[in-house]
Amino acid sequence: MLPTIECRDDAIVMIDQRKLPAAEVYVTCKTAPEVAKAIKTMVIRGAPAIGVAAAMGIALGMRRSKATGTRQFTTEFQKTCDLMAATRPTAVNLFWAIDRMKRAFADAAQGGGSVAEIAQRLEAEARRIHDEDVESCRSLGAHGAALVPESARILTHCNAGALATAGYGTALGVIRAAAAQGKRVAVLADETRPFLQGARLTAWELVRDGIDTTVITDNMAGAMMRLGSVDLVVVGADRIAANGDVANKVGTYSVAVLAKAHGIPFYVAAPISTVDLDTADGDRIPIEERSDREVTHVGASRLTPEGARVRNPAFDVTPAQYVTAIITERGIARPPYAESLAQLVGSRQPAVGSLS
Amino acid sequence: MLPTIECRDDAIVMIDQRKLPAAEVYVTCKTAPEVAKAIKTMVIRGAPAIGVAAAMGIALGMRRSKATGTRQFTTEFQKTCDLMAATRPTAVNLFWAIDRMKRAFADAAQGGGSVAEIAQRLEAEARRIHDEDVESCRSLGAHGAALVPESARILTHCNAGALATAGYGTALGVIRAAAAQGKRVAVLADETRPFLQGARLTAWELVRDGIDTTVITDNMAGAMMRLGSVDLVVVGADRIAANGDVANKVGTYSVAVLAKAHGIPFYVAAPISTVDLDTADGDRIPIEERSDREVTHVGASRLTPEGARVRNPAFDVTPAQYVTAIITERGIARPPYAESLAQLVGSRQPAVGSLS
Repeated sequence: MLPTIECRDDAIVMIDQRKLPAAEVYVTCKTAPEVAKAIKTMVIRGAPAIGVAAAMGIALGMRRSKATGTRQFTTEFQKTCDLMAATRPTAVNLFWAIDRMKRAFADAAQGGGSVAEIAQRLEAEARRIHDEDVESCRSLGAHGAALVPESARILTHCNAGALATAGYGTALGVIRAAAAQGKRVAVLADETRPFLQGARLTAWELVRDGIDTTVITDNMAGAMMRLGSVDLVVVGADRIAANGDVANKVGTYSVAVLAKAHGIPFYVAAPISTVDLDTADGDRIPIEERSDREVTHVGASRLTPEGARVRNPAFDVTPAQYVTAIITERGIARPPYAESLAQLVGSRQPAVGSLS
Repeated sequence: MLPTIECRDDAIVMIDQRKLPAAEVYVTCKTAPEVAKAIKTMVIRGAPAIGVAAAMGIALGMRRSKATGTRQFTTEFQKTCDLMAATRPTAVNLFWAIDRMKRAFADAAQGGGSVAEIAQRLEAEARRIHDEDVESCRSLGAHGAALVPESARILTHCNAGALATAGYGTALGVIRAAAAQGKRVAVLADETRPFLQGARLTAWELVRDGIDTTVITDNMAGAMMRLGSVDLVVVGADRIAANGDVANKVGTYSVAVLAKAHGIPFYVAAPISTVDLDTADGDRIPIEERSDREVTHVGASRLTPEGARVRNPAFDVTPAQYVTAIITERGIARPPYAESLAQLVGSRQPAVGSLS
């Protein structure tokens, strides 16, 4: 298993995803603000992984609290939750994980728990979120593998792999599960500018697993489809609205339109925690605009001239009409998504967080 | 006027397009093989510019010939033409220019010209090809500007600018002409991985001209269209088949499919020398596959891990059905292109080269 994020003693250790594949460097966060900064600066990224990191960060922060009474402890907890919530706006797993931590806090506090007992309960909840995420990925991988033919050339965008989750991955979980079943899979990985998650992270993960991987620039996806070199597309998601619209890494929408134009199935793989029934459709999903520098530079190389503006929306929205199916740990949702997603979300109520 | 390529004394001087926008460096070629190498390594690129460079390279090579008789001179000429023809396979302007030089040679030789006289004739022909290219760009710019609304947000891919031609540009010629007419134009420039012609060259040219320019990563084009931020697309071409299929920088096809899905006009701007009536359709156009390193690295930064393969087709083919109109110096071709292109090509026979 790839070491995306781990609790060790009094710290949280993450592999620095900005440095891969050139270097395997680990970042140790000893405080909640350090975890928040790691999320914001993309030491760790990927919607499920962000949720896990936020939960662990909250647990860490509260374990280190010096509050003596529950009143002060509650105030600190709220501040720590707010800190995490302010890191990145699009991935709903972040808010889902914070909400789970809030409910765990409320449960423990209502039971009359001490500060130490509440802190323990938060730590247990964070570990549970982590472990459930790995289980979810394995389960959705198994569901998704059924959609993969015996021999398949699969295009993916960005990194929805072990590094984007607590382990195993969503889109890459589907690919791993298909490969584990003995299916012959070959992956075309969009490099995914500007952060290059495909070239750097997806390729790194898949090569480690011995899966045939070819990196292409984002603008080659259409040409590859036209040449008949793509059998299916599978991507992850940062937020799925109630109607099935999908926010995911910028470029996903282009791939979806191209897939439809070529009659190629376009699958989205994500845990139920990515489904946000409180967001009616994709146009209501906040889209993060990140710093210009991600576009203007690669490493030390400046690409654009002074005087040219740049845009850097980190995500885009793919309307539900382009999505062939949504693969979750509870099964596969098909259109109409308003019904199928509501059904999957409701199927095991206790495990589902609301955003209230 | 941008100094794309110039004859100076006994040399050809080109701006090194690999170094822009970080540095304005000029490369001086003193022999035909040096010119061929400059074309192959993309010191100079862009279909019309490649044609001009090849013609100038042939003229330079023959001026420097030490052949005493026409027989030896003819052999050297053929070798020099072959050298140029082997540089890059897709842009038909290269073969068109070589063919013009061959006809000039044959004319001069048939007239009983001496080696010196033939060499002079070749030099004159190369200058004519250069000058005609600038005129063609200005003329097609004027035709194309009529298609641009009073206020237009224009998306372009790669660099079809002054740097891709002897001057003024094709797609950027249309934009320049529209701006010169007082139209309010704002340009979205796809960065155009892997060689980054959009981020580096198009942005550099347009900023110099004071035209509002925003660079986006290639995968943002679809999202920008969906948000209503693109009024029209205009791109250049490396070869246009008799049926109107267009080979152009890889990624053009994706942009064309996206434009169609959003009801956005998709225009191709190219001189008549880019139209190849001897190629029936786009699938017969040879597509150059360039070195892996263009994809695996940006500057000194390695993006992909060892063990991952890459693809690097430099061009793709956009079927005619996606092309709203083809803008040439002789007017605008509309579907069905088999008729409209044949008509434009035939309209001034003497200026048109065949590939026989």
